[in-house]
Amino acid sequence: MSIPQTQKAVIFETHGGPLQYTDIPVPVPKPNELLINVKYSGVCHTDLHAWKGDWPLDVKLPLVGGHEGAGVVVAKGENVQGWEIGDYAGVKWLNGSCLNCEYCQNTNESNCADADLSGYTHDGSFQQYATADAVHAARIPKNVDLAEAAPILCAGITVYKALKTAELSAGQWVAISGAAGGLGSLAIQYAKAMGYRVVAIDGGADKGEFVKSLGAEAFVDFLATKDIVAEVKKVTNGGAHGVVNVSVSEKAMDQSCEYVRPTGTVVLVGLPAGSKVTVPVFDAVTRSIKVKGSYVGNRADSAEAIDFFARGLIKCPIKVVGLSELSNIYDLMQQGKILGRYVVDTSK
Amino acid sequence: MSIPQTQKAVIFETHGGPLQYTDIPVPVPKPNELLINVKYSGVCHTDLHAWKGDWPLDVKLPLVGGHEGAGVVVAKGENVQGWEIGDYAGVKWLNGSCLNCEYCQNTNESNCADADLSGYTHDGSFQQYATADAVHAARIPKNVDLAEAAPILCAGITVYKALKTAELSAGQWVAISGAAGGLGSLAIQYAKAMGYRVVAIDGGADKGEFVKSLGAEAFVDFLATKDIVAEVKKVTNGGAHGVVNVSVSEKAMDQSCEYVRPTGTVVLVGLPAGSKVTVPVFDAVTRSIKVKGSYVGNRADSAEAIDFFARGLIKCPIKVVGLSELSNIYDLMQQGKILGRYVVDTSK
Amino acid sequence: MSIPQTQKAVIFETHGGPLQYTDIPVPVPKPNELLINVKYSGVCHTDLHAWKGDWPLDVKLPLVGGHEGAGVVVAKGENVQGWEIGDYAGVKWLNGSCLNCEYCQNTNESNCADADLSGYTHDGSFQQYATADAVHAARIPKNVDLAEAAPILCAGITVYKALKTAELSAGQWVAISGAAGGLGSLAIQYAKAMGYRVVAIDGGADKGEFVKSLGAEAFVDFLATKDIVAEVKKVTNGGAHGVVNVSVSEKAMDQSCEYVRPTGTVVLVGLPAGSKVTVPVFDAVTRSIKVKGSYVGNRADSAEAIDFFARGLIKCPIKVVGLSELSNIYDLMQQGKILGRYVVDTSK
Amino acid sequence: MSIPQTQKAVIFETHGGPLQYTDIPVPVPKPNELLINVKYSGVCHTDLHAWKGDWPLDVKLPLVGGHEGAGVVVAKGENVQGWEIGDYAGVKWLNGSCLNCEYCQNTNESNCADADLSGYTHDGSFQQYATADAVHAARIPKNVDLAEAAPILCAGITVYKALKTAELSAGQWVAISGAAGGLGSLAIQYAKAMGYRVVAIDGGADKGEFVKSLGAEAFVDFLATKDIVAEVKKVTNGGAHGVVNVSVSEKAMDQSCEYVRPTGTVVLVGLPAGSKVTVPVFDAVTRSIKVKGSYVGNRADSAEAIDFFARGLIKCPIKVVGLSELSNIYDLMQQGKILGRYVVDTSK
Repeated sequence: MSIPQTQKAVIFETHGGPLQYTDIPVPVPKPNELLINVKYSGVCHTDLHAWKGDWPLDVKLPLVGGHEGAGVVVAKGENVQGWEIGDYAGVKWLNGSCLNCEYCQNTNESNCADADLSGYTHDGSFQQYATADAVHAARIPKNVDLAEAAPILCAGITVYKALKTAELSAGQWVAISGAAGGLGSLAIQYAKAMGYRVVAIDGGADKGEFVKSLGAEAFVDFLATKDIVAEVKKVTNGGAHGVVNVSVSEKAMDQSCEYVRPTGTVVLVGLPAGSKVTVPVFDAVTRSIKVKGSYVGNRADSAEAIDFFARGLIKCPIKVVGLSELSNIYDLMQQGKILGRYVVDTSK
Repeated sequence: MSIPQTQKAVIFETHGGPLQYTDIPVPVPKPNELLINVKYSGVCHTDLHAWKGDWPLDVKLPLVGGHEGAGVVVAKGENVQGWEIGDYAGVKWLNGSCLNCEYCQNTNESNCADADLSGYTHDGSFQQYATADAVHAARIPKNVDLAEAAPILCAGITVYKALKTAELSAGQWVAISGAAGGLGSLAIQYAKAMGYRVVAIDGGADKGEFVKSLGAEAFVDFLATKDIVAEVKKVTNGGAHGVVNVSVSEKAMDQSCEYVRPTGTVVLVGLPAGSKVTVPVFDAVTRSIKVKGSYVGNRADSAEAIDFFARGLIKCPIKVVGLSELSNIYDLMQQGKILGRYVVDTSK
Repeated sequence: MSIPQTQKAVIFETHGGPLQYTDIPVPVPKPNELLINVKYSGVCHTDLHAWKGDWPLDVKLPLVGGHEGAGVVVAKGENVQGWEIGDYAGVKWLNGSCLNCEYCQNTNESNCADADLSGYTHDGSFQQYATADAVHAARIPKNVDLAEAAPILCAGITVYKALKTAELSAGQWVAISGAAGGLGSLAIQYAKAMGYRVVAIDGGADKGEFVKSLGAEAFVDFLATKDIVAEVKKVTNGGAHGVVNVSVSEKAMDQSCEYVRPTGTVVLVGLPAGSKVTVPVFDAVTRSIKVKGSYVGNRADSAEAIDFFARGLIKCPIKVVGLSELSNIYDLMQQGKILGRYVVDTSK
Repeated sequence: MSIPQTQKAVIFETHGGPLQYTDIPVPVPKPNELLINVKYSGVCHTDLHAWKGDWPLDVKLPLVGGHEGAGVVVAKGENVQGWEIGDYAGVKWLNGSCLNCEYCQNTNESNCADADLSGYTHDGSFQQYATADAVHAARIPKNVDLAEAAPILCAGITVYKALKTAELSAGQWVAISGAAGGLGSLAIQYAKAMGYRVVAIDGGADKGEFVKSLGAEAFVDFLATKDIVAEVKKVTNGGAHGVVNVSVSEKAMDQSCEYVRPTGTVVLVGLPAGSKVTVPVFDAVTRSIKVKGSYVGNRADSAEAIDFFARGLIKCPIKVVGLSELSNIYDLMQQGKILGRYVVDTSK
């Protein structure tokens, strides 16, 4: 396979600076890395944070963003094992980690202090050729559509991990707050595939129809319901066994600590800059609830989340546009006008 | 065994009203209950809350308080199985529960909506003869000192349960905030018996010596240390794997969310009226921490906590006074002047 | 509700002796018991063992067998809480237990040394009125058909518990050996509802079609396949993550230790008198497999298994005959000619 | 650090062939490997199996055996991260694995199909300079004695892992069968450090004194006790919650399935060629026992086992001899005359 010297990419040099669609050199993989010809990349709200620089975590500059890249292996470092040229591979948020620390040793590689993050500390998937640590890159089966697979690589894995973090049993209720959005709609489908009963929380009757079409058993409309907490408790006959807070509203997160069932689990998964959850101690203790942060999935979570998708259990409605139009999508995200998931085609 | 018609007890009729040491009738056990001749009863901070009525949970009035009663079975209802007259038995916080709900069925009987609470919704152990549901009453081996066993029945069980809730492995670090107090000093000993490494947090060099004598491996003095969070992280080489917040200071609880190790667990166990813990979302997610409420132990936890004590691994320094002096102890508690654990002798 | 003095029942006085359809007194519930008007009762292979007396566990004689009784509460002892006359209730294998031992305290009540077993040590459901400990009796929602619910009370609960014992995650493969039989067909449906992928093992193409109609994703025909172990490994891409051995063939159980995936779990759940499983140590260690015995479900398992059924996820094809014909069913069982699940109608 | 071209090693060319103490080339580390100057190496029974070739697992030939090598890093491949020249490092059984498969991703790297085994498929620690995958090599703190640390690298890690596999809680009983041997004496100490109560099983009063000196609470002498099963049940008040079968006697393993407590766990950890455990199905099911194979520890287990040792909680009495005398130790092993743990000094 012939690999060009230069490629198209979208790059920015300063936080909030221009998102330039331009030619840059194709990177050279290190001994432990794959070079992946990214065909499609999802666009995630995290990309906006990286560009704005509003998280308490340093960003590489200049930066090529993107961490939902689905493509084909075109080259590999000399130390890479288990990959062949032509394999489908995914560039995900966790590009690499030290493999040596207690977190890496215990499958918590996302918590590695030396985590290397695609589209954040490592040039990501908004380019035609990206590098990824071979141990961390996601394997994608050949039977899937790469454009549809792209959002699974962060959004899908993240909600799947959040559901696992809730430690539910099949037959139990999970509340998904912000259920009709991009993450929420994936969460509903994963939850259903895992045997959970979903109560979806969002605003508006059309959202209600949408979430039910995805498998939600109940819908709580925060625009129409006076007492969300009481309503969730009623629908679930005592409170949701678990909650996945896709919504990052502080009020929604606080409410979730109230409508979660005694001994149940509230999962925080969004990354709003500066938000806080307030947990009343007396209630938390006497009801024995748990509040857990869930970050991106590890390698095993990733493989599992992709497997559910590859088996046809998860549908992710996407809008495909050219990579050259990426800055327009950032504008829409900043205006809060994104509906559904955008995927960029790096060839356009 | 001859059972009298009346007995000595301390009773109050209104919240904050007089704590009267007086004669009241000996209660008659229901078919499912034991009648226990309480020899000694520990005095717990919860007794103060019951008297003041400052918790969002209704209290029976008039009330005989107390939920750490150690004594001897003197009678039993017709439906009681597995107990003999003369057995040692303990009156604990959870006097009874429905045995039928999902919480009771899953060993979470403390979370039963119909939980009956000694010294709160059911006359407790500040009397010579108390009733207790035979399924819930604690079994106490004959080889122990009943006065020393009394505080185990709530304080001991509660910290043991909190340690279990932290889900640690032997060899991991647990931070105990408020380590030199009554609960804390028990928590250190249980933690050590479970193979954990203890970093004790409290104020004052004398406290430091005390906690080390109980088995703490490190001491962080909040009076002498500028940056508690940094100090705990340093001592534990990256943060405590678990934290048991015996201290109910909001600041201490908030700090524990910072010095807990990534993927670690903060346990809330005290029941301050009105307090809140504030969890920063970004940090909780990227560090994947857990905050868990831990209420009193279930029947199995109780048996285990008593077993550690009976095996001589837990020492609880107590001050024994007569039941007639109970109101003085309430005064001391209200003034925050309690040092160590008071136990009342019901015969005096 | 008027309760008669006598009732119809099937009773036997000696092992292997006549199964007499006759009139016997209606039992009187103890303080902790319900009196249940049994409408329907499933017939289980265990009933045959109780009658033959070939298990190393003493049987009450004379005995009314049966432990899958679905009916209506018509009376209750004075100490019963949480039940109303007219509630639907189930008589299950575990009629009662001590509630006091470490097993009862830890939800392992099935392992209680004082377990009282319906149709074995306690007159069971092959009568119109049976007693059951109120804490252990199964709650049955009013929306279900009692005849169809009957087999869930043992067969359904047992396979559900076995699946839980396999400790699988959604998306993993479970092999069910003996999949087309009464237990197996329930196991497939529960497995599917729990999000597992089922490879069903049984003999014959018609069995293959049947198990696939219930949700099995793959079928291994032991009549047509030379190397069962290799075939299961191939279908599951490396071995089943879990195995539920509904079949009690020693050869099948031994094979399951071979085709289970490394780190996977083989569950034993049948109760053949005298059978053994042989585990090769070198293989068990280097592949880190687990072999677990799974007995009947506890109270929580029972409630969950019934909930799956009540939600319409589990269908149990039954043949209903009169209680008076029970001895014919025993004949069929003894001849190994039972197909599907028989349920007796106690009114006939 | 100057690295020689050749070194002393013990090598054999055929199964059962001469164990030659000779000069061989110093190996060159691959990009992902460390070169470790082995100072000391433990000698394990597995080394005998590798030499005899009696396991169903192919051995590299000619072979340098040994997989308990403690030494100093003297060189590293270009792709190695997180190691410095001069660090203490250990060569353990699992020299390397693919890092890509589901087993590697889930911390079950010992079960990786491409596992590379020191002293088995990869030249091991019976040489002065050995290579080891940097991700898998054990980190050894600088404060420990390397000769004493050597046996921890396989024997210590293995028994620690077996204890973890038993999934016990502090305060529960673990039976160790073969307790006075090399593995057993380590197992007792780890068990004690983890808060378990140890019943040690071995033969002879001197063994009894020895195991009690290491922390066993009870001793069952199979030479003096008629009914081992009854005795263990009596001592543990109902059966051991867990069993670690260090002994590889089939009879001992079978007995352990009998004296394990209901719901308890029997761990198989030895690797006798051809042995089998026979599990009676009825008993396994009604008592709900588990039989689990436990292989060598993963990287995290290894770090933890070493940490217990480095903290001074584990003592391993060793006999140090020169590497040149290794063939004598093989003779002793073959004759079953080994007492305690031999460690070879590679400089002699």
